[in-house]
Amino acid sequence: IPAPCVAAISDKLISKGMSAVSSLCVCVSLQMYGRYTQDLGVYAKEEAARLREGSQRRSVSERSRTLDLLEYDKGRCAKCRTQKWMYGGLDSNVFLQYLAWVTYPVVLITFSAGFTQILAPQAVGSGIPEMKTILRGVVLKEYLTFKTFVAKVIGLTCALGSGMPLGKEGPFVHIASLCAALLSKFMSLFGGIYENESRNIEMLAAACAVGVGCCFAAPIGGVLFSIEVTSTFFAVRNYWRGFFAATFSAFIFRVLAVWNRDEETITALFKTRFRLDFPFDLQELPAFAVIGIASGFGGALFVYLNRLIVQFIRKQKAINKFLMKKRLLYPALVTLLVSTLTFPPGFGQFMAGRLTQKESLVTLLDNRTWAKQGIAEEFDYISHSQAWKHPQVNVFVTLVLFIVMKFWMSALATTIPVPCGAFMPVFVIGAAFGRLVGESMAAWFPDGIHTDGTIYPIVPGGYAVVGAAALSGAVTHTVSTAVIVFELTGQISHILPVMIAVILANAVAQSLQPSLYDSIIRIKKLPYLPELGWGHHEYYNIRVEDIMVRDVRYITLNCCYRDLHDVLLTGHLKTLALVESAESMILLGSIERAQLQSLLSQQLGRPRRLEYIRERAAAEKKRLSVVSNPGSEDGSQRANHEVRFQVREATARGAHISRARFSWFFFCWQFFCSVICPLQSSPSSSLLLFYFLQIAEWEEQQLDEQVNFNNCKIDPAPFQLVERTSLHKTHTIFSLLGLDHAYVTSIGRLIGVVSLKELRKAIEGSVTVKGVKVRPPLASFRDSGTSSSENEATELHKLWDRHKSMSLPREHVPSDSDEKSQ
Amino acid sequence: IPAPCVAAISDKLISKGMSAVSSLCVCVSLQMYGRYTQDLGVYAKEEAARLREGSQRRSVSERSRTLDLLEYDKGRCAKCRTQKWMYGGLDSNVFLQYLAWVTYPVVLITFSAGFTQILAPQAVGSGIPEMKTILRGVVLKEYLTFKTFVAKVIGLTCALGSGMPLGKEGPFVHIASLCAALLSKFMSLFGGIYENESRNIEMLAAACAVGVGCCFAAPIGGVLFSIEVTSTFFAVRNYWRGFFAATFSAFIFRVLAVWNRDEETITALFKTRFRLDFPFDLQELPAFAVIGIASGFGGALFVYLNRLIVQFIRKQKAINKFLMKKRLLYPALVTLLVSTLTFPPGFGQFMAGRLTQKESLVTLLDNRTWAKQGIAEEFDYISHSQAWKHPQVNVFVTLVLFIVMKFWMSALATTIPVPCGAFMPVFVIGAAFGRLVGESMAAWFPDGIHTDGTIYPIVPGGYAVVGAAALSGAVTHTVSTAVIVFELTGQISHILPVMIAVILANAVAQSLQPSLYDSIIRIKKLPYLPELGWGHHEYYNIRVEDIMVRDVRYITLNCCYRDLHDVLLTGHLKTLALVESAESMILLGSIERAQLQSLLSQQLGRPRRLEYIRERAAAEKKRLSVVSNPGSEDGSQRANHEVRFQVREATARGAHISRARFSWFFFCWQFFCSVICPLQSSPSSSLLLFYFLQIAEWEEQQLDEQVNFNNCKIDPAPFQLVERTSLHKTHTIFSLLGLDHAYVTSIGRLIGVVSLKELRKAIEGSVTVKGVKVRPPLASFRDSGTSSSENEATELHKLWDRHKSMSLPREHVPSDSDEKSQ
Repeated sequence: IPAPCVAAISDKLISKGMSAVSSLCVCVSLQMYGRYTQDLGVYAKEEAARLREGSQRRSVSERSRTLDLLEYDKGRCAKCRTQKWMYGGLDSNVFLQYLAWVTYPVVLITFSAGFTQILAPQAVGSGIPEMKTILRGVVLKEYLTFKTFVAKVIGLTCALGSGMPLGKEGPFVHIASLCAALLSKFMSLFGGIYENESRNIEMLAAACAVGVGCCFAAPIGGVLFSIEVTSTFFAVRNYWRGFFAATFSAFIFRVLAVWNRDEETITALFKTRFRLDFPFDLQELPAFAVIGIASGFGGALFVYLNRLIVQFIRKQKAINKFLMKKRLLYPALVTLLVSTLTFPPGFGQFMAGRLTQKESLVTLLDNRTWAKQGIAEEFDYISHSQAWKHPQVNVFVTLVLFIVMKFWMSALATTIPVPCGAFMPVFVIGAAFGRLVGESMAAWFPDGIHTDGTIYPIVPGGYAVVGAAALSGAVTHTVSTAVIVFELTGQISHILPVMIAVILANAVAQSLQPSLYDSIIRIKKLPYLPELGWGHHEYYNIRVEDIMVRDVRYITLNCCYRDLHDVLLTGHLKTLALVESAESMILLGSIERAQLQSLLSQQLGRPRRLEYIRERAAAEKKRLSVVSNPGSEDGSQRANHEVRFQVREATARGAHISRARFSWFFFCWQFFCSVICPLQSSPSSSLLLFYFLQIAEWEEQQLDEQVNFNNCKIDPAPFQLVERTSLHKTHTIFSLLGLDHAYVTSIGRLIGVVSLKELRKAIEGSVTVKGVKVRPPLASFRDSGTSSSENEATELHKLWDRHKSMSLPREHVPSDSDEKSQ
Repeated sequence: IPAPCVAAISDKLISKGMSAVSSLCVCVSLQMYGRYTQDLGVYAKEEAARLREGSQRRSVSERSRTLDLLEYDKGRCAKCRTQKWMYGGLDSNVFLQYLAWVTYPVVLITFSAGFTQILAPQAVGSGIPEMKTILRGVVLKEYLTFKTFVAKVIGLTCALGSGMPLGKEGPFVHIASLCAALLSKFMSLFGGIYENESRNIEMLAAACAVGVGCCFAAPIGGVLFSIEVTSTFFAVRNYWRGFFAATFSAFIFRVLAVWNRDEETITALFKTRFRLDFPFDLQELPAFAVIGIASGFGGALFVYLNRLIVQFIRKQKAINKFLMKKRLLYPALVTLLVSTLTFPPGFGQFMAGRLTQKESLVTLLDNRTWAKQGIAEEFDYISHSQAWKHPQVNVFVTLVLFIVMKFWMSALATTIPVPCGAFMPVFVIGAAFGRLVGESMAAWFPDGIHTDGTIYPIVPGGYAVVGAAALSGAVTHTVSTAVIVFELTGQISHILPVMIAVILANAVAQSLQPSLYDSIIRIKKLPYLPELGWGHHEYYNIRVEDIMVRDVRYITLNCCYRDLHDVLLTGHLKTLALVESAESMILLGSIERAQLQSLLSQQLGRPRRLEYIRERAAAEKKRLSVVSNPGSEDGSQRANHEVRFQVREATARGAHISRARFSWFFFCWQFFCSVICPLQSSPSSSLLLFYFLQIAEWEEQQLDEQVNFNNCKIDPAPFQLVERTSLHKTHTIFSLLGLDHAYVTSIGRLIGVVSLKELRKAIEGSVTVKGVKVRPPLASFRDSGTSSSENEATELHKLWDRHKSMSLPREHVPSDSDEKSQ
């Protein structure tokens, strides 16, 4: 096929590719949630019929509502049913009930952890931190393999099925990215555009949007969330692609529900039915603001708690040793603890333990008031809501217990090494907190706050929506959770309360803790650049010269291999600077370490050595035969004498042979002993030593040769910064271009280097590394406007003086004109 | 005040500043729409009471609805009332009615155009194109002045009041940015952080979000729209700021409505009441897709039409001359034409001419079906809807006429030189088109499409929402119009149809025409980089070496002033490259043209010339007095002879004196004639000529001196590209960093330069500029992987050879080791 044709076809395919990714994701999602739809269909119909019999009045709207609920029932795939069946069938014996309740999650989580561990340990956790790192330009190839894909999908399915407080948003983002990466790899077989690196990054950015989009059937919120969570700078031209992919994923996700006859038409996933004409009173806004601020603290606490648990387990060496030995013990223990506490006849009865995550969310977003049951509402009670009402215990106590218990359980559960996210658990906790505040408000103002005649009772469900958005926003440091809740509930009437709460929650959480994903990045020590916090003015006052490493490893254009060798032994950076000469320090480019290593090994490598040895051996043999011919005793004596002299000389010369080449010496020794010596009749040890020293001398000669860079790939335009660039701008440039390091130059002269490490340290404020110093706080007093040109002028002056002093033959001789003018 | 205190205070103020900007915007918005609220309040109450009497049943919901509608009535500030009053009071005479209908808009638009023209012509138009350019990093200072602010606010108020099909979104973005810029300027008086350039850009980005946010009370859509419209790469850390600002602006905008007792609580601006349980059928999706595709074509046509009108008026020299003479004639004529055609008793009766833009939108988003009036709906007819129902003409004809007429009217009206946008008119046309499709669908399927027993009639209002989002999205090339309509209507139930339609509309429109704002940028010839279209693979295959200008103007480190002078005469770029020497071409940095000009003027400037002349004059006087003393005749003869000889010599030497300095010669001549000659007793013309030639010689000497760059501000790290960078990557880097030009280097050697102009030409495909050639389409066949290193190696080889041939005294002499090894 001619190349243009392929290009044209692949152009068509890029759009199809996106929707393929989306549908693949949807398939994954359906695989998990719709797997048992078929056999559940019968049950669903029966249940619907039963409910319809019970009340004739609520025909149309109620039916769709029931179907909604049934879908949620079905949503919790096999486990819930099996677990409930086991639990329900064992009515008589509490112990057997407990066993049934506990065994299922433990087995599933253990299997998931084991499977993931064996197949691809990269699949553990959310995947969003890794995607963030990859989209920044850092290559983490093992995170985008087919193995990881399989491990993630199967591991996630099992983990979600266990009923533990785990989410699926992060893993979905990772799965979608895996699809995109595999698709890109597949497409690149056809060549053309798909081989392009930046194209793949664009694909990945769109895939992230798909992941969240098909989780919630939230095309807009999904795109925004994935942007906020994975990008620092977002290309607006990718925006359109993200929306395209996410819309198709959401569309297919919901259309399949219609085709399965679960729904009559496309609707929201967690549809709410709050009243439209008066959604909330203006005077309720302070309560919403309180939810926002409290969620901010709660979100920061959650991130802190999560990190604390991970660090605690890591630090406790005894525990760690034990857990490391039996890798599956930790997941099993955690699952056992959590499922024991939620056991419905036990402690679970006080915290609605028998509800799954989705059921909890549905009941929490309910538009009725729980605390004050006297008011007649148009909708009847849903059976699940009963779980919140304990005969002895107040609903407020149930809610508080639910929030507190779920809070630490979620923080603990997300540390289990299975593919899992934390978004959904946090979302549910937020909804419960919002519901708590809402119920309190409803109890406080039974007739609503509005004073203008008509009674508008307070809607606690609206508070739940606000709380869910605020807490999940605080944990992830995103604002787009607001959009997600609108798309999830299908109602946008609470837009202002939600926005205010989310913004306040973000303000509080961002000033206290990093986001959950950044926290995981730090725990996992991924090469990522932290965000600049807001309100830190010092970033504008710290200059790059304050944080740069001045002791740059460089090679000169006319350096010899010895310099190369020394530089390679000491430095650590992946690339080395190439300068014109050590005096001028004019930066010409950068060379990768691997290139230099191959240069060096070409010069001193085994083939050339062997060649040299053979040459020498042949020459020596010839000489010896010539020498030994005239007179064997005398000749050998003379040769011996000669050798001794040469040895003394060579030893003096080769005294500083580096240790690194000693192994090579021994190899040569053995080579001589085995190959050359048997050929010769009289092998003397001094002669052998002579050979070795000759080889050492040859090596020294080779090292003294000038490096030939001709076959070396040089990056002629590495990124350069000026020494007075502010930390803020440096951060911007590093994140914009996904840089790993940048050279600091002054009028073409290399004066330092800044890498991600220095930048990270400078931003995090813990600047303890050698050679790095941070400006004192008083640096803000410094007048930045005037001094910079002076500094530059001085640097230039030096360069200029050097040029003058070198007095090269130039096209123009200044002294001539000087003479003329006199 | 100590600086840290100021910094701390200003930290507080930055957040306040944002809300100040927002509230200022809100104030502006209220100034326009709420100015006549107070006196209208009474009328509103009466109207509400009257309506309530009319029907007892619809108590709660209807009341808020009525109030909603009244607010829209009030929304059209004084003009509407006055115009309608005039129009209503003159019932008897159609001609007087016509006069009243026409005079008002003409006067207002003429005033607006005149006022803007006189005070600040920069205030004309939308302002979004200018903001896009400014946010890209190009400084357009005159667009952010206080004068522009005043002109924009007053001009916009009048333009909107005229009732012409003009929008306010673009101007609001500009006004908000003006507020932010003025605020920044004010804050920078306190020093500290506010002096920072990038900080101001961040402020502007947030201000753009405020502008749209307070227009529609749409915090989320506003932020997204402003991002899409103004940015190429968006910093996610500004996202949060935008949401913060936009939420406050929307909040204050809507809260003031509550405080004015126009509304009971915070609600959406154009609240819709579509049914929730079954918003649309799955089988209606093709119709929505058709709306999307048609809107895409419509949007492209609108942009094309708008550009065509502008270009037609510019090209027609006769018209142009006439209009230029009388600048206010064009606005007046256009207004006259438009208002004549909408005159209600005339042609306006067939296109709902008596409705204002807001009234049209409210009626179009109505949830009843117009075509089929038999079905009983729960809501009664609103009076405005009657405007669509002509006794003789079908509602379809009215809608078609409305769409067609408003289409060209809007395209024409937005070319009037007043502050105005095009978003709202397009939005209304889109809504009308959607309504048309919806009504057709409703007429086609009177009982709805759903076949499962229950009748769900089609909701044409939902189609109107989809159409509005799709057409406005197509014209502006944005997806976020989808979010805006959700926030505007307060209902999110149509999310999938809206998303699908918007995406399809974007796909069609983007492939046909640039966005309206990009079109205006091209018309106004603002320095902006066009977007890369999608599906153009050639961008990956064109290299920067294909488009760069190879003939770079540079100066060398040891150049003389003559080189400087020559370079300054020929080049055009704002900055010049500084290289080490003409042979090595190693790039050391770049210098601004202004800096070089000041260097040159320092060297050859008036002070130094005058000083030299005075010195010479003094020396000559002394010499002459010495010469004339011994013998006057002989001495004068000898002096004359000497002069003649010197003149000949000097003439030979100074033959190539550039024309540019002739004026200076004449100045010197006059100076001599007037100042020096009267002092001397015997002024001879040959002596004078001698002086001039001596000055010329001095000049030549001065020009031959080596340039001292010590006091010159040099940018030591100008942006460098490699010659094999793809056009795609170059575009990305230019847009990311807001570059104006970049040098192309190869191993430190300057080989070319790429400026915005070359890049723009290369992207737009019209590569005709000298020295620029574009790869043939077959370039995609080229193997890009292997050849690059060869190329680099060759370049390096040259450099290396040069170094060897120069044989400078280095620390290492290669020949030594060569000798040793032999």
